[in-house]
Amino acid sequence: MAAQDRLSDHIDGTRLWTRLMALAQFGARPDGGVDRPALSPVEGEARAQVITWARAAGLSPFTDAAANLFLRLEGRDPALPPVVAGSHIDSQPTGGKFDGTFGVLAALEVVEAIAARGEKPLRSIEVVAWTNEEGSRFAPGMTGSDLFTGTKALDAVREGRDAAGITVGAAIDAILAGDVDVPVRGFGLPIAAYVEPHIEQAPLLERAGLPVGVVTGIQGTRRYRVRVKGEAAHAGTALRAERRDAMMTAVRMIAAMDDAAMQPADTLFTVGLMQVTPNAPSVVPEEVFFSIDLRHPDNAVVDRMDGEIRAIAERLKGACEVELRQIQHSPSLEFPLEIRRLIAQAAQDLSIPAMDIYSAAGHDARQLHYVCPAGMIFVPCRDGISHNPDEWAEPDDLTAGTRVLADVVWALASRG
Amino acid sequence: MAAQDRLSDHIDGTRLWTRLMALAQFGARPDGGVDRPALSPVEGEARAQVITWARAAGLSPFTDAAANLFLRLEGRDPALPPVVAGSHIDSQPTGGKFDGTFGVLAALEVVEAIAARGEKPLRSIEVVAWTNEEGSRFAPGMTGSDLFTGTKALDAVREGRDAAGITVGAAIDAILAGDVDVPVRGFGLPIAAYVEPHIEQAPLLERAGLPVGVVTGIQGTRRYRVRVKGEAAHAGTALRAERRDAMMTAVRMIAAMDDAAMQPADTLFTVGLMQVTPNAPSVVPEEVFFSIDLRHPDNAVVDRMDGEIRAIAERLKGACEVELRQIQHSPSLEFPLEIRRLIAQAAQDLSIPAMDIYSAAGHDARQLHYVCPAGMIFVPCRDGISHNPDEWAEPDDLTAGTRVLADVVWALASRG
Repeated sequence: MAAQDRLSDHIDGTRLWTRLMALAQFGARPDGGVDRPALSPVEGEARAQVITWARAAGLSPFTDAAANLFLRLEGRDPALPPVVAGSHIDSQPTGGKFDGTFGVLAALEVVEAIAARGEKPLRSIEVVAWTNEEGSRFAPGMTGSDLFTGTKALDAVREGRDAAGITVGAAIDAILAGDVDVPVRGFGLPIAAYVEPHIEQAPLLERAGLPVGVVTGIQGTRRYRVRVKGEAAHAGTALRAERRDAMMTAVRMIAAMDDAAMQPADTLFTVGLMQVTPNAPSVVPEEVFFSIDLRHPDNAVVDRMDGEIRAIAERLKGACEVELRQIQHSPSLEFPLEIRRLIAQAAQDLSIPAMDIYSAAGHDARQLHYVCPAGMIFVPCRDGISHNPDEWAEPDDLTAGTRVLADVVWALASRG
Repeated sequence: MAAQDRLSDHIDGTRLWTRLMALAQFGARPDGGVDRPALSPVEGEARAQVITWARAAGLSPFTDAAANLFLRLEGRDPALPPVVAGSHIDSQPTGGKFDGTFGVLAALEVVEAIAARGEKPLRSIEVVAWTNEEGSRFAPGMTGSDLFTGTKALDAVREGRDAAGITVGAAIDAILAGDVDVPVRGFGLPIAAYVEPHIEQAPLLERAGLPVGVVTGIQGTRRYRVRVKGEAAHAGTALRAERRDAMMTAVRMIAAMDDAAMQPADTLFTVGLMQVTPNAPSVVPEEVFFSIDLRHPDNAVVDRMDGEIRAIAERLKGACEVELRQIQHSPSLEFPLEIRRLIAQAAQDLSIPAMDIYSAAGHDARQLHYVCPAGMIFVPCRDGISHNPDEWAEPDDLTAGTRVLADVVWALASRG
């Protein structure tokens, strides 16, 4: 490809930025953040907006039984498996404007640039927005990519419930019912390659002063739910020696697990969710339910910590009962060199400084990795802050990442 | 009073029990417990039922700006301050059938016995149900008795909110709007004496095999709200050294405070409520808000622990900010010997075995103690379990306590 007709030269960074800000209005928080729960009415409205943009650019929308959204640009040979790029548009309750949406809108920008340039790619290209990546409303996340790749079964997934008791199935049906003329396809269509652009959610690119990261792999994760069952009692009369206090048992468990996770120092141990029953100031809690999120690049560290967490729960349960359930286990993975080299080459050709980087966060690319060549492109986010209303990425960095994506997607879509 | 015409002989234990079971239907839980939040619609329905019973017995209902409910039997000299007896009808979310309601229905039974016997007392007698004793929906509790006795100001109390954002003021107004022909009186009417019957909520009477306890005083309490403010961050990318994790700070604080409260062994330290923000499994919590309930009979112990709690919060706050606010401080108190002797004498005259007992739990009698001679009568509850659906009291014990109450109330109402 000669320098003068690189697809990346047709990328419109201003349009990308304008759309990011526009999409952030769906579920906008007063503090500037975004609260757009997976499969919620407000996510449905954001989805409709993306479909409107895509149709105006000549793309055809498709969905599936997970409510994943695909926006297809037909290639010269529609029979060839498409190249897919994108991410997700759901957010954490205290989310920002970039996590997920950047990937979807960058991919949309790439396909618009192709349309603007007027040359059809050999392979079809699809922009994707996967359902429930975040896992906040319905835990765990990655619902759309799990179902698409066959990692999980639809019937079981549909039975999951949010805090209000609404099932995943009912929420999917509500989104699909709101679609206008969006055909429903099956899961597992063959894909030629998958590329996911995303903000880094850590401070390494920013510290290095580099606009683009070539993601080498994704950190392993185990997720658990722990239920500590004690007995409700009167805060003013129940003698301590006779209490089965779920709160005091839970806080000591969590502190001990956190202590155990101090080594190695890059072990990530998070208790983000806790539900107390009955949650009344004058009542000794009868039950404490909490989440554990455990991650480390080295699978051996995660596996060792798994044993320690289970041992601590047993050792400290005291007079309470404890149920520890692992709800997810995703080993660490490495993306294929083929995709990583393509990304690094594109950046080099564009004189965009880049470096290899590891993803501490999970992404839908993890699921796609097991069914097609997959890779990710990172851009910096300020102070590494994400899942937070203060999440921020510089427009120039977003444009740089999108330009790299454009040339990578074009190259992949041009291969027979 | 000759043995043959004691008021206590007219007490109908079966009617008392039938009414206790009937009132437990308002807010009945599937597990046999009761969930009847203060000032809720279901408490309003229970209130209407009590008014219906009272009117049928010839009593006149009154209320006030706190929605306290008074059921008055006019005495021979209506100008004399009345004798007041009762408790409350709100419950904890996982409450039982007896906490509070026994006191109200026992007092109602006493007044019905007077009506059945046909002899008017010298002083008027009022049955009372104080508003929001429990403090679960609106914290802290004792709202009705605090307002009646002038311990708190109405305007400030009305601004309190429940978890759904509903104010105390709006909830009071809703209850008052539901009353039919219930005159509203001012706060602070003079009272001759106050007697509150209640289940013990501890196992001492049951262990001693005694049906009645003469309450000597009420344990001192301090209540706090603690807000630990950190920073939301991505569970998979934010390095531990750079986190400001409100959860890990809070659990270590709570564990350290609980350790400090181990001596003396009868110190009661409870964290019954915890709210986590944003409470999502993949987000490092930005804020943890929790309650502390601290009690001990010896004020010096409570005061020393107050200092330790504050020191621990400061010492362990780490990179987070901490706000510790004391929302209640009620020193330990002793009821006057005059009322205690009257209760003990009534029990002895009835050959009902009784013993002196200390109240570890707070009651509305605490507030009344500062405005009139006050006392309490305890009856055993099974295994000392309260604030729990399994709360249980034996009908014979409830009848015994009500018989003692009858003769005490009659004696108080007969004094000029």
